[in-house]
Amino acid sequence: MNPTSISNSQLLDSLRWRYAVKQFDPTKKISDDTWAALEDSLVLSASSFGLQPYRFLVISDPAVRAKLLPHSWEQNQVVDASHYVVFAGRTQMTEKEIDSFLHLTANTRGQAVDSLKGLRGMMTGSILSDKFQVNVAQWAALQAYIALGSLLTSAALLGVDACPMEGFVPAEYDRVFDLPAQGYASVVCCALGYRASTDKYATLKKVRPAKAELVKTI
Amino acid sequence: MNPTSISNSQLLDSLRWRYAVKQFDPTKKISDDTWAALEDSLVLSASSFGLQPYRFLVISDPAVRAKLLPHSWEQNQVVDASHYVVFAGRTQMTEKEIDSFLHLTANTRGQAVDSLKGLRGMMTGSILSDKFQVNVAQWAALQAYIALGSLLTSAALLGVDACPMEGFVPAEYDRVFDLPAQGYASVVCCALGYRASTDKYATLKKVRPAKAELVKTI
Repeated sequence: MNPTSISNSQLLDSLRWRYAVKQFDPTKKISDDTWAALEDSLVLSASSFGLQPYRFLVISDPAVRAKLLPHSWEQNQVVDASHYVVFAGRTQMTEKEIDSFLHLTANTRGQAVDSLKGLRGMMTGSILSDKFQVNVAQWAALQAYIALGSLLTSAALLGVDACPMEGFVPAEYDRVFDLPAQGYASVVCCALGYRASTDKYATLKKVRPAKAELVKTI
Repeated sequence: MNPTSISNSQLLDSLRWRYAVKQFDPTKKISDDTWAALEDSLVLSASSFGLQPYRFLVISDPAVRAKLLPHSWEQNQVVDASHYVVFAGRTQMTEKEIDSFLHLTANTRGQAVDSLKGLRGMMTGSILSDKFQVNVAQWAALQAYIALGSLLTSAALLGVDACPMEGFVPAEYDRVFDLPAQGYASVVCCALGYRASTDKYATLKKVRPAKAELVKTI
């Protein structure tokens, strides 16, 4: 058993406390320790083959945040939140990325990279196939969304507020960060920090259908 | 502040304890209470506009699990895990789904549905646009992956093991559950339960690049 597991109610209280913050308190900053833990939660996220085909851009420069605002439907979370993360997914996967992952695996586990030949064949057979290659960006975006889901839950458990943000112009973000030249594209964003006491959305009742509408037991 | 928040190390110890289980102990079942909490965590997941364009199919019938096995590359997690969830995303979004959501919102919050006219205009303008309509299934899949990420993290925190599974034949799953006729398509699966003591993957070192390779501060 996980030696540090929490109770069902501790989990659910945190998930019920969570909401998509509209108004962050710009004076409240996430501590370095807590932010480091949230970055670790991103790094520890699960992904297809473990390949983690993404990067997390943490935008700390206020001038860059200001530059993103008009490309984010002027949503103030972009400039007011303590931290702002842009999830960038890979748009290309080649043998290079696969071999780099296999070397990392071999090094981490003290294996010869040759012992991973079978895995290599499986990975290249899947990822370098024509069928897969046309959907690399979409596949990478899905993996980034796992990390987003994990981040939202992790933040809630640490008492950090968040707002997942799909309302931005990816092409403009890509241009600001020169992502296409690096083989990446922006897929989703997340603002994190602490809710303003004046955010009226904080006290609105959470809207959820009856469990039986979403969960079907077969 | 979230009154039930946990410590950074409690979160990270759980995330490090997590791994993609290859071999579940078929004799160990998740308790009803804990499973109810995990279903709640799915229902509480964040989504675009709050629309939750998905369903979670919990496959408890062993005969149905057995039927899925050949469509899941014979991965035994499908039959051995305590619980097996198929995430099905919507393939169509019409005014009906939007209005149903707005009625739920109005009912939940004791508002007149007319007071949500502005929101309705924004939602229909976005979701019913040609640009959006060609990508409904992809958008719904992304939202389902947020729920998957949240589920993986929630399960780890409750001491429940899991294995996210993309290795299945969606068209065959769709056929088994008659999903196309209902406007859904299977997008991803997750097996949950408890690791077998013989699963050699449990003790392998987690493979992760240096944080600086994934997280870039700008």
